[in-house]
Amino acid sequence: MSEPLRGVGVSPGAGAGPVLTIAGAVPEPPAGSRHGGDAGAERDAALAALEAVAADLEDRGARAAQAGNTDGRDVLNAQALMARDPGLADGVGAKVEEGVAAARAVFEAFGVYRELLAGAGEYMAARVTDLDDIRDRAIARLLGLPVPGVPESAEPFVLVARDLAPADTAVLDPAQVVAFVTEEGGPTSHTAIIARTMGVPAVVALPGATALTDGTRVLVDGAAGTVVVDPSDTEVEAARAASAARASALAESTGPGATKDGHAVPLLANIGGPQDVAAALAAGAEGVGLYRTEFLFLDRSKPPSDAEQEEAYRKVLEAFPEGRVVVRTLDAGADKPLAFLPPPGDEPNPALGERGLRMMRRHPDVLTAQLSALARAAAGLTVKLQVMAPMVTGVEEAESFAAACREAGVERPGIMIEVPAAALRARDLAPEVEFFSIGTNDLTQYACAADRQIGGLAHLQDPWHPAVLDLVAPAAGAGVPCGVCGEAAADPALACVLVGLGVTSLSMSAPSLPLVRATLAQHTLDECREAARAARAARTPAEARAAALAVLGQEG
Amino acid sequence: MSEPLRGVGVSPGAGAGPVLTIAGAVPEPPAGSRHGGDAGAERDAALAALEAVAADLEDRGARAAQAGNTDGRDVLNAQALMARDPGLADGVGAKVEEGVAAARAVFEAFGVYRELLAGAGEYMAARVTDLDDIRDRAIARLLGLPVPGVPESAEPFVLVARDLAPADTAVLDPAQVVAFVTEEGGPTSHTAIIARTMGVPAVVALPGATALTDGTRVLVDGAAGTVVVDPSDTEVEAARAASAARASALAESTGPGATKDGHAVPLLANIGGPQDVAAALAAGAEGVGLYRTEFLFLDRSKPPSDAEQEEAYRKVLEAFPEGRVVVRTLDAGADKPLAFLPPPGDEPNPALGERGLRMMRRHPDVLTAQLSALARAAAGLTVKLQVMAPMVTGVEEAESFAAACREAGVERPGIMIEVPAAALRARDLAPEVEFFSIGTNDLTQYACAADRQIGGLAHLQDPWHPAVLDLVAPAAGAGVPCGVCGEAAADPALACVLVGLGVTSLSMSAPSLPLVRATLAQHTLDECREAARAARAARTPAEARAAALAVLGQEG
Repeated sequence: MSEPLRGVGVSPGAGAGPVLTIAGAVPEPPAGSRHGGDAGAERDAALAALEAVAADLEDRGARAAQAGNTDGRDVLNAQALMARDPGLADGVGAKVEEGVAAARAVFEAFGVYRELLAGAGEYMAARVTDLDDIRDRAIARLLGLPVPGVPESAEPFVLVARDLAPADTAVLDPAQVVAFVTEEGGPTSHTAIIARTMGVPAVVALPGATALTDGTRVLVDGAAGTVVVDPSDTEVEAARAASAARASALAESTGPGATKDGHAVPLLANIGGPQDVAAALAAGAEGVGLYRTEFLFLDRSKPPSDAEQEEAYRKVLEAFPEGRVVVRTLDAGADKPLAFLPPPGDEPNPALGERGLRMMRRHPDVLTAQLSALARAAAGLTVKLQVMAPMVTGVEEAESFAAACREAGVERPGIMIEVPAAALRARDLAPEVEFFSIGTNDLTQYACAADRQIGGLAHLQDPWHPAVLDLVAPAAGAGVPCGVCGEAAADPALACVLVGLGVTSLSMSAPSLPLVRATLAQHTLDECREAARAARAARTPAEARAAALAVLGQEG
Repeated sequence: MSEPLRGVGVSPGAGAGPVLTIAGAVPEPPAGSRHGGDAGAERDAALAALEAVAADLEDRGARAAQAGNTDGRDVLNAQALMARDPGLADGVGAKVEEGVAAARAVFEAFGVYRELLAGAGEYMAARVTDLDDIRDRAIARLLGLPVPGVPESAEPFVLVARDLAPADTAVLDPAQVVAFVTEEGGPTSHTAIIARTMGVPAVVALPGATALTDGTRVLVDGAAGTVVVDPSDTEVEAARAASAARASALAESTGPGATKDGHAVPLLANIGGPQDVAAALAAGAEGVGLYRTEFLFLDRSKPPSDAEQEEAYRKVLEAFPEGRVVVRTLDAGADKPLAFLPPPGDEPNPALGERGLRMMRRHPDVLTAQLSALARAAAGLTVKLQVMAPMVTGVEEAESFAAACREAGVERPGIMIEVPAAALRARDLAPEVEFFSIGTNDLTQYACAADRQIGGLAHLQDPWHPAVLDLVAPAAGAGVPCGVCGEAAADPALACVLVGLGVTSLSMSAPSLPLVRATLAQHTLDECREAARAARAARTPAEARAAALAVLGQEG
């Protein structure tokens, strides 16, 4: 039995299987590569490779859309369009006419566009990577190299990568992926979120992960954060048994969320639409803590009709007759641009741009239509409907949003606390609304000025940062009910700390609910408060986590 | 005498002259425009227009560089390269061959590139605007329309715009611009900063500014924030006399910065290199509070040599034998990319990316070389050299930076406080370093999650936000000397509030120093503290400013 490799476990469970690594860089075809002389055949091969890439991207896009990931589909379709650009085909054809080999011709023709993009302004044009991806796929096909991106496999595998990007995971088949292992990333990285959502074991931040060779059999323990190379059958069985025991212990922990001493903490689910309701109910969610309404609006040239909105909302509201449903109004902009609500011109940093409520204030008709549809959808139902605005910064915004809600017949307006200024001045905002919901992902991103989308900054993107806890505290203590709907709520130990800070409900992806419920049931409210005090007295995220675990016990 | 228009005065002084508005949008040449039949002549005209645009951009770039603005030069040269792109010329030629008129051919040929850029990924490619600017300049030339951008004028004028972009102001001749008036923007907008640096009166956020017709004579009072249309000679003379009296009162306020009751607050200058020292000395700066060292590194394929760095630093250090010089180590990344230190791949939000110290930690050799050059430059001089790192988020970063400084022989390491987490946890960072310097511009940007570069979010980018004051307070109270080097220090009333919060020195662009010195001399430290308390008790930036002014008096 070899010493296990240690990383950070971010999604529990045990999985064993052969390693499959996301293929690395495609090499540059050497300058001066010439073809044999048949320019026509060579050009046909180049264009066929580009067409195959486009078709493959579209196919992946269609599969992503089927899996409910329309964002992923849009990215992939935009790439397919680029692969079929006629100017590009002309460029490749001209190079081949000059005698340049197909792969090199593709490389050089893309180079012209690449320079244009890269030279287009002070900041490098952000999407050069998309272009390079298409180029590398076409070159890989022409040279018979493995195509970059998620590999295809006939048997289930352990997916290993430096870090997983949204495009990589958009088309993954959950039945094929036994576990994720990445070299970078942290507990709130894209990989961690996807793994928890898919219910797949995952270990991130594992040094040397990408040095594992394809086909090597590994055992991944997503609770312990370990990877065992060439495990014995006994080891695999033991890990699976422990994982199953844990899962069944979790399954036995049912009922409403509460601390050991009976302090109620409603446990809610984050959903994207009616399609996610069944999983939320199965996990015992007491309601919905974050209904992301963007999915209804994506990929359209105009907003959905009033009737269509009402129907989608009603389907969710009807599912929780005894519970609550917290709806977030349209959070457009930044990484969720909408065709009918383009951002106003050039945004060098969309995450700091016109997004969320900021954009709705320029389109009050869209907001009013959504609020009215929500009010109509809730009419006659027993569910407690709460509606909140994203990206609120100051008092005037909270005031005007609450007024718009009440005018439309929505009685319980609230706001997201995700901008540091809003957290710091929560006491000024509280009188304007009925509740808060802290979005810890964005709050951490802004508090630490570290982009959630950049794997290399994962160490700065940690909701355990004591400064983030310092921002949660005033929001949770401002005198209105205050939930948390970021990924922090899905970390069992952090969930206890949040409750200790005064947070009144927790919302997370459905698969995370049982473990949080079970962990909370093991600790009193006073222990949670003590864990929160210990974490805030620490100086770094790692020290804060260790201090909380010292209070709560190593399992959280 | 007509009622004056009221905006926000952001740079004091009075100026009168004819309005010149930055030209608005160039119309799209109608689809189906055909030329007379001489395709050769038409193509020559189109290419001549593109070449003229490229030459003009280069010329503006050269002038920007002469004015010390190498950033501006780089933007403009990149645009010139795009205007001369051979693929573009081929595209235009092909359209003209088909009979399309030159202006329309330019429009359509750019359209191909534009789509590529705009379609290049989920987020619109940020630099479509640069491409449109070139297109519009070429079309304006072909159609005989006014060329967009800053107009050329034979006589001094009042520049009116919706908002001014860096490219607009890069080539302005200070002798030609009597005043700035913009419809958008706030006290920390690009327009305000440029106006104060140039010493030109400016009024921003003036509703209806762009409705003023060119040639209309206006009187701009940058202290009162007013614009009088068609002023009488008496009005202009009165405003100029008041402004001159104010300026001479300011000139009489000399000596070290201090409150009325003698509490010393050293007043320092923000500089970009040795070329800014004379203005700092002339304004009575007691030293340099922010030496931005990026200018030495921009536009190079490798870092400057050790000797070159040492010489540039020594020139500045020698100028303040009795004072202090606070040097900021290389702040690369985000809006200041360096050719030899490219960011690691795709950054959708560079302001939240790998910038400042984050990037230096991957290039320790560049940091060590800079620190060693600084230590050598200061050897034998009486000046107090302080060196600080930008974009520090946590304790480990502060610790390792201080260690690197001391190892290189720099005895007084400090850090910028510009990330909200660093401000909140200032007490954890203080034991690691000798001093703090608060960068209020970035601190406000992150605290309010509002990009400094977006004019439409200026209302969310206000250092008077009580949350920003809440972040200054813990940094200023953490037990180490704490300066402010953001534009907030240049606002006389806010400068008093900052001193009241415990800030120990203020650094700003040289032209702002006299008014801050004079204002500080009019108030006791207790009054400053009372103004700070009043501002923090407010709920909005406007209320905070009004509350502070109520304590300090309307002049600040």
